Amino acid sequence: MQIGMVGLGRMGGNMRQRIRNAGHEVVGYDRNPDVTDVASLEEMVGKLTGSPRVVWIMLPIDYVQATIDTLAPMLAPGDIIIDGGNSKYTWDKAHAEQLAPKGIHFVDVGTSGGVWGLQNGYALMVGGDDADIATCQPIFDALKPAGEFGFVHAGGHGAGHFAKMVHNGIEYGLMQAYAEGWELLEKAPEVTNVREIFRSWREGTVIRSWLLDLMVQAMDADEHLEKIEGYAADSGEGRWTVNAAVELGVPVPTIAASLFARFVSQQDDSPAMKMVAAMRNQFGGHAVKAEGEK
Amino acid sequence: MQIGMVGLGRMGGNMRQRIRNAGHEVVGYDRNPDVTDVASLEEMVGKLTGSPRVVWIMLPIDYVQATIDTLAPMLAPGDIIIDGGNSKYTWDKAHAEQLAPKGIHFVDVGTSGGVWGLQNGYALMVGGDDADIATCQPIFDALKPAGEFGFVHAGGHGAGHFAKMVHNGIEYGLMQAYAEGWELLEKAPEVTNVREIFRSWREGTVIRSWLLDLMVQAMDADEHLEKIEGYAADSGEGRWTVNAAVELGVPVPTIAASLFARFVSQQDDSPAMKMVAAMRNQFGGHAVKAEGEK
Amino acid sequence: MQIGMVGLGRMGGNMRQRIRNAGHEVVGYDRNPDVTDVASLEEMVGKLTGSPRVVWIMLPIDYVQATIDTLAPMLAPGDIIIDGGNSKYTWDKAHAEQLAPKGIHFVDVGTSGGVWGLQNGYALMVGGDDADIATCQPIFDALKPAGEFGFVHAGGHGAGHFAKMVHNGIEYGLMQAYAEGWELLEKAPEVTNVREIFRSWREGTVIRSWLLDLMVQAMDADEHLEKIEGYAADSGEGRWTVNAAVELGVPVPTIAASLFARFVSQQDDSPAMKMVAAMRNQFGGHAVKAEGEK
Amino acid sequence: MQIGMVGLGRMGGNMRQRIRNAGHEVVGYDRNPDVTDVASLEEMVGKLTGSPRVVWIMLPIDYVQATIDTLAPMLAPGDIIIDGGNSKYTWDKAHAEQLAPKGIHFVDVGTSGGVWGLQNGYALMVGGDDADIATCQPIFDALKPAGEFGFVHAGGHGAGHFAKMVHNGIEYGLMQAYAEGWELLEKAPEVTNVREIFRSWREGTVIRSWLLDLMVQAMDADEHLEKIEGYAADSGEGRWTVNAAVELGVPVPTIAASLFARFVSQQDDSPAMKMVAAMRNQFGGHAVKAEGEK
Repeated sequence: MQIGMVGLGRMGGNMRQRIRNAGHEVVGYDRNPDVTDVASLEEMVGKLTGSPRVVWIMLPIDYVQATIDTLAPMLAPGDIIIDGGNSKYTWDKAHAEQLAPKGIHFVDVGTSGGVWGLQNGYALMVGGDDADIATCQPIFDALKPAGEFGFVHAGGHGAGHFAKMVHNGIEYGLMQAYAEGWELLEKAPEVTNVREIFRSWREGTVIRSWLLDLMVQAMDADEHLEKIEGYAADSGEGRWTVNAAVELGVPVPTIAASLFARFVSQQDDSPAMKMVAAMRNQFGGHAVKAEGEK
Repeated sequence: MQIGMVGLGRMGGNMRQRIRNAGHEVVGYDRNPDVTDVASLEEMVGKLTGSPRVVWIMLPIDYVQATIDTLAPMLAPGDIIIDGGNSKYTWDKAHAEQLAPKGIHFVDVGTSGGVWGLQNGYALMVGGDDADIATCQPIFDALKPAGEFGFVHAGGHGAGHFAKMVHNGIEYGLMQAYAEGWELLEKAPEVTNVREIFRSWREGTVIRSWLLDLMVQAMDADEHLEKIEGYAADSGEGRWTVNAAVELGVPVPTIAASLFARFVSQQDDSPAMKMVAAMRNQFGGHAVKAEGEK
Repeated sequence: MQIGMVGLGRMGGNMRQRIRNAGHEVVGYDRNPDVTDVASLEEMVGKLTGSPRVVWIMLPIDYVQATIDTLAPMLAPGDIIIDGGNSKYTWDKAHAEQLAPKGIHFVDVGTSGGVWGLQNGYALMVGGDDADIATCQPIFDALKPAGEFGFVHAGGHGAGHFAKMVHNGIEYGLMQAYAEGWELLEKAPEVTNVREIFRSWREGTVIRSWLLDLMVQAMDADEHLEKIEGYAADSGEGRWTVNAAVELGVPVPTIAASLFARFVSQQDDSPAMKMVAAMRNQFGGHAVKAEGEK
Repeated sequence: MQIGMVGLGRMGGNMRQRIRNAGHEVVGYDRNPDVTDVASLEEMVGKLTGSPRVVWIMLPIDYVQATIDTLAPMLAPGDIIIDGGNSKYTWDKAHAEQLAPKGIHFVDVGTSGGVWGLQNGYALMVGGDDADIATCQPIFDALKPAGEFGFVHAGGHGAGHFAKMVHNGIEYGLMQAYAEGWELLEKAPEVTNVREIFRSWREGTVIRSWLLDLMVQAMDADEHLEKIEGYAADSGEGRWTVNAAVELGVPVPTIAASLFARFVSQQDDSPAMKMVAAMRNQFGGHAVKAEGEK
């Protein structure tokens, strides 16, 4: 099968490779001349000879809309655009509706796998119509892991990105829970061997997981993480998960707590805690620390 | 009425004054010669001529047990020891039981009022036996605010400190909720006048309170709290509240969240967030910030 | 001064009364013939003789857009529409922009006061332009409480509703913190007199507030709240507060926890806890409760 | 090697089997005559012929102290008592100190594995002295999983139970995060295939884990968990984790939130939410639900 791929960064580039390794043809376009296969989107579309043509967009979210707007006039009825990036699930239905009058079909794919995907495969969560997904199945099969798992048709337009969003929301909660446990062990006077505790948990425990394996790897490189700042960025999906939960009336205390912990980690100083300190000073005469004194 | 008072710091000193203002006699002892009335505990007890004698201990928690141990042999059956400090509620029953064989009675008093207490009165939450509390009532009446509120016999030994502990736990939650709202308003691009919003809330709103008044006062001194570090100490009561709730199976999500926010504010860097950053780096190749780079 | 008021429910009806009590003229319209002054919006606008004309909309959020759409053609350049309901702050800028081409001005007002507002006044948080707010000031002065507080010009379009939204978000947190403390006291074996503890806190404590006064009132009617179900509805503002915080990157752990506690209270059974029970059963053989057995 | 084992319930019985399968001799005692090997503790100790003798206690926490008290006089200097149950870490140092004057050694073992342990092995977290652990190593090797992980010498007395406690605390957080994500997917209108989404996550995702596998198994038995009540018991370890964190000043927002979610699931009705409903009624006239109406 043949596919066009727009966006050949860390994710897109590796995905092109994995698809090619499976024997398919990928015509990749990226504005970076070092990695692109063609000079322009037009050239990419021009090289797609199948019918329908399938174009996979793998771009940062700020570029998705403009790329769809540019691509649409180059495509014909029956062609399929796949948005495989980290787009918000609410956009997918809008994109499907934008493309429908032109007869262009739309599929959303949430993709997990990170830097390990090239080797181990990418987990794919797909939203859209059965027929379109069947058309693209050879590409999905090339990308997914070798075993029986790692692919799901999650529902209609948006379901793929919704599922991926929730995957990431859960991921926030899992990471935070492990991290809290690690901090607690590091502080316990009885405990002398925190890294080896985590390593031992890799078998026979309820909490064994891939994230646990990664924690051990990180501690093998830097046992007490002394070289790493306690700063955790957050991507859109954690925020969207909490907001979707709020809109649907679903309590998500651990996912929200994990997101807020990241927010705090991103602050140089906490305005809220300034105010708490100010109130303590007002009612109790408790000394405040002057800015810079901490 | 006559009372001995041990501990004449910020709280004890003002309480001595307020009791005296009400016409009672206070023999105060403090190891600080600048504030003490007598040279020793013995001298203090020797000057108490009533029967029963009443001694009010107003000390940091680390000094309470030793003071009770020292005082007990100087007192006679029927005498009363009041622990008015921020002691843990679980100690009170133990103190009552320690003193009972000697016929000495014990009363625990949780005290609120801070630096405003001398002028406005202290809210008193009292645990112990009816008869003992009746004996001490003139002192309680001298200390409490002028109005109809501010005094309660909360229950048996420990109930006074338990009530005060919960008061402080609630206080943590209230302060955090206001502080979160303040931070949110400060970040909102639509809003230009955060301090005046808070001031306006002092009448007609659901959230008017004394803490709100204090916030406005703090902002009047430093509108955006630029001179204050976002560092909030925590006293024992917040921790005890969460632990008591956990032991009694009571969910306290906001009080616990408030306590944890203070813990985070006390850290130079967050071990947990180092681990979250390390995991993100392991699975996604997300760059970490080197320690010191933040 | 003269004003049109659309929506004469519990809030709007009392506000009409309070404005009239201050000596102003209100032409009120409601689709309920028992409370309306006029038969239609047209008749209401027709009776407004001033220039500019001012119309205050006090409607449930689902009716606001349609009412603005209907009113706009009846008004003239310079006239002012006030949205005083619980609208979302993001709508205000849209409404201002919708009306601007017609020369109609827009002011958003967040209103607090509930069933007590008629007697005590309504706290008003106002967003919009200085000149428009000056025009409406006599009405604001009629509605606000008698003292020096209770009114603020919070910022541009949307700032009034944003401030009111945050007010309600804080309110969620305050209520939850008090409620957690109450539950903890009710469960403590040492404590015998929970209601009187709360009553005593009304003076001399750090946590004294109007909400505390209301709690005592509620316990005076039903000491242990045995007649009330533990079900708490949530209005839009709590949800919007959390979502706004997430979008602005502001950690709001207590406000979010309060919102989630309400979500849980609204569920007959918790899907999440079904899954926790199912996992415990899978790994530990822990018995699950069959549905209906609880 | 030879070992005495006290307590042959679900855990102890399977552990006896696994140790025997590895070729060691176990003399097991249980008060249940159907499972015990001997009629009494005395008989059990009498059958232990090695030097030192090793006795493994695998009992519910309420029986541990009495059993140690009973066993101690039967043992000789150099003998070893292992507490392999879910005891609190703070007890271990006390037990070691209790036994030290008699020359009896103490080792604490946190054990994970549940109903899967017999087949897959038990993860062991061990606290105590090097020499004692070396003596017991053949038994640990028999119990642990076959691979290179699943055993750790975590530190001094108490470190084994501390590590197991934190393991369970993390487990609480992980389960809650997955469960929140599941509830959110079940509520999302876009998503039609929640079980298959979870199944697909078993490969290629960041959140793959043994708990995820168990969730899929539970959904295979009852896709929407309609037969299970949303009731989750909590064992001591979750509570101890939060309390240890509070004492050590470690923020554990997700672990605490998970524990509180279980507390709520255990309540027929929420006192706190009654109070929230009561306050809403007081200030806003919002109707409350009468008890039983929910």
